[in-house]
Amino acid sequence: MKNEVFVGEGMKYVKEDCPDLYDVIVKLNEAVYSGNVLDYKTQKLIAIGITASTGDEKSTRKQMKSGMVELGITKEEIVDVLRTVLLTSGMPAFTKAMKILYEL
Amino acid sequence: MKNEVFVGEGMKYVKEDCPDLYDVIVKLNEAVYSGNVLDYKTQKLIAIGITASTGDEKSTRKQMKSGMVELGITKEEIVDVLRTVLLTSGMPAFTKAMKILYEL
Amino acid sequence: MKNEVFVGEGMKYVKEDCPDLYDVIVKLNEAVYSGNVLDYKTQKLIAIGITASTGDEKSTRKQMKSGMVELGITKEEIVDVLRTVLLTSGMPAFTKAMKILYEL
Amino acid sequence: MKNEVFVGEGMKYVKEDCPDLYDVIVKLNEAVYSGNVLDYKTQKLIAIGITASTGDEKSTRKQMKSGMVELGITKEEIVDVLRTVLLTSGMPAFTKAMKILYEL
Amino acid sequence: MKNEVFVGEGMKYVKEDCPDLYDVIVKLNEAVYSGNVLDYKTQKLIAIGITASTGDEKSTRKQMKSGMVELGITKEEIVDVLRTVLLTSGMPAFTKAMKILYEL
Amino acid sequence: MKNEVFVGEGMKYVKEDCPDLYDVIVKLNEAVYSGNVLDYKTQKLIAIGITASTGDEKSTRKQMKSGMVELGITKEEIVDVLRTVLLTSGMPAFTKAMKILYEL
Repeated sequence: MKNEVFVGEGMKYVKEDCPDLYDVIVKLNEAVYSGNVLDYKTQKLIAIGITASTGDEKSTRKQMKSGMVELGITKEEIVDVLRTVLLTSGMPAFTKAMKILYEL
Repeated sequence: MKNEVFVGEGMKYVKEDCPDLYDVIVKLNEAVYSGNVLDYKTQKLIAIGITASTGDEKSTRKQMKSGMVELGITKEEIVDVLRTVLLTSGMPAFTKAMKILYEL
Repeated sequence: MKNEVFVGEGMKYVKEDCPDLYDVIVKLNEAVYSGNVLDYKTQKLIAIGITASTGDEKSTRKQMKSGMVELGITKEEIVDVLRTVLLTSGMPAFTKAMKILYEL
Repeated sequence: MKNEVFVGEGMKYVKEDCPDLYDVIVKLNEAVYSGNVLDYKTQKLIAIGITASTGDEKSTRKQMKSGMVELGITKEEIVDVLRTVLLTSGMPAFTKAMKILYEL
Repeated sequence: MKNEVFVGEGMKYVKEDCPDLYDVIVKLNEAVYSGNVLDYKTQKLIAIGITASTGDEKSTRKQMKSGMVELGITKEEIVDVLRTVLLTSGMPAFTKAMKILYEL
Repeated sequence: MKNEVFVGEGMKYVKEDCPDLYDVIVKLNEAVYSGNVLDYKTQKLIAIGITASTGDEKSTRKQMKSGMVELGITKEEIVDVLRTVLLTSGMPAFTKAMKILYEL
């Protein structure tokens, strides 16, 4: 299942109060993650890299967690994602994400 | 070879005028992209996703180009990277990167 | 019609090569802009403010243009959007967007 | 009154230690929010959209709160602002801001 | 004179059409750059670093140019600013700013 | 010593688990901060300005702290850095960083 975007509390409120929007987000999520040449795991690693590069702590933690639980992504694989983050986005984003990863 | 960071003009000036810094960047690039559990191609796809998500046109074009030339990454694979960008970073970053990809 | 996201060249490629994704984006756009307490024009002004605050030239121009053509948003109204951008996002984003607006 | 920028603790320190800067910020705030074609509430909704799109939790909460208290902006109206954020800035910024809104 | 924010075309339009806002921006600029413990040149180097770290080409060029013309900042000094950008913000922002600097 | 990047917890994990990457980061840090026309203190002030402008709380606090402890940078000097942040990056980044500074 490709349901990582639905675990957060934000989405709970969307489901309750904006069912039309919730339906579309489910469909968007399906379209983004289905029937592609890249497998879901690779796309998930990309999503981890993008959120880590923004320095957004909560989103990074959520993406890492769902990748590990849902897809069996390992700590070593995420470290390699973060190596790319170091090169493209600098030290603060990199060290922050390393700390998040090791505290999961 | 993992030399995509060295093709741009910016690096040409670094090589000429800051040889100490240039040497370190070569080593950093090696450390980021070598001997990992993820292969170089996956890390490159992540780098494309990160630069596309920032909306930075030149860096995105450079990353896509070097990924295609150096590693044989296909247009279809980059489209799948950009699907992830759509979900994590919104429509403007996504459509801009799609346009860059199709004009390469 | 609320079709401003479909005018760009990026979306043309999506329509041709990723029809499933295109369909979802049409639905997402509908869900975002329909049946709300805020009218479409107010949401469009917000979208102009968000893109201008990122400093992204092409997206800002596209949002301003479609707001003027589709919804009759005036130059004076966009100036007021950009006043907010000045306060929240600083001088470079503000002056860049002012220049874009006056060259439309 | 258009005094939302003055409630935070950051501004308290500015007032005490940099009175010249404080005076200018008061004047800037007045110039940004006064005598325009857009009313203050619309500008406030734009400011909420811009801060939410950056993923900055504290600023987003502060903007939402002052908009609700000062101007009577409703939860439903902010949800519509966040719909725009979803389209322009992606899922992480959107779900984070939804969570902030529902915990106010 | 500390007038670098006033050279761009964006500000020309502000002066003509929003004289109240223009006056405040002049005062803000004065308050930011006057009577401080750091001299103007150091603050200008910081402004160059901040704009370069955002990857915004036009603002970076404008800041570098005004720093060189107004304050006699050298190419070597800006290279040192950009070394800091490399560490805090990553390779794409760094190489892009190096290219801008060497093409001035 | 120019060791501010090594105090955080993120770097502790890098040292333990990625010694090759750790070595390169030490060398990069040296190359960035050594033998330049700008002194280390000026580069540090620039790093404080860049992290504050991103609105990243933890990195900003870490940069401010290490600048004060390692280099004797004063509160008044950081306030002047933040004046520049106000102009280039807007009120939310500025007030947030002022609050961080006064709570150190």
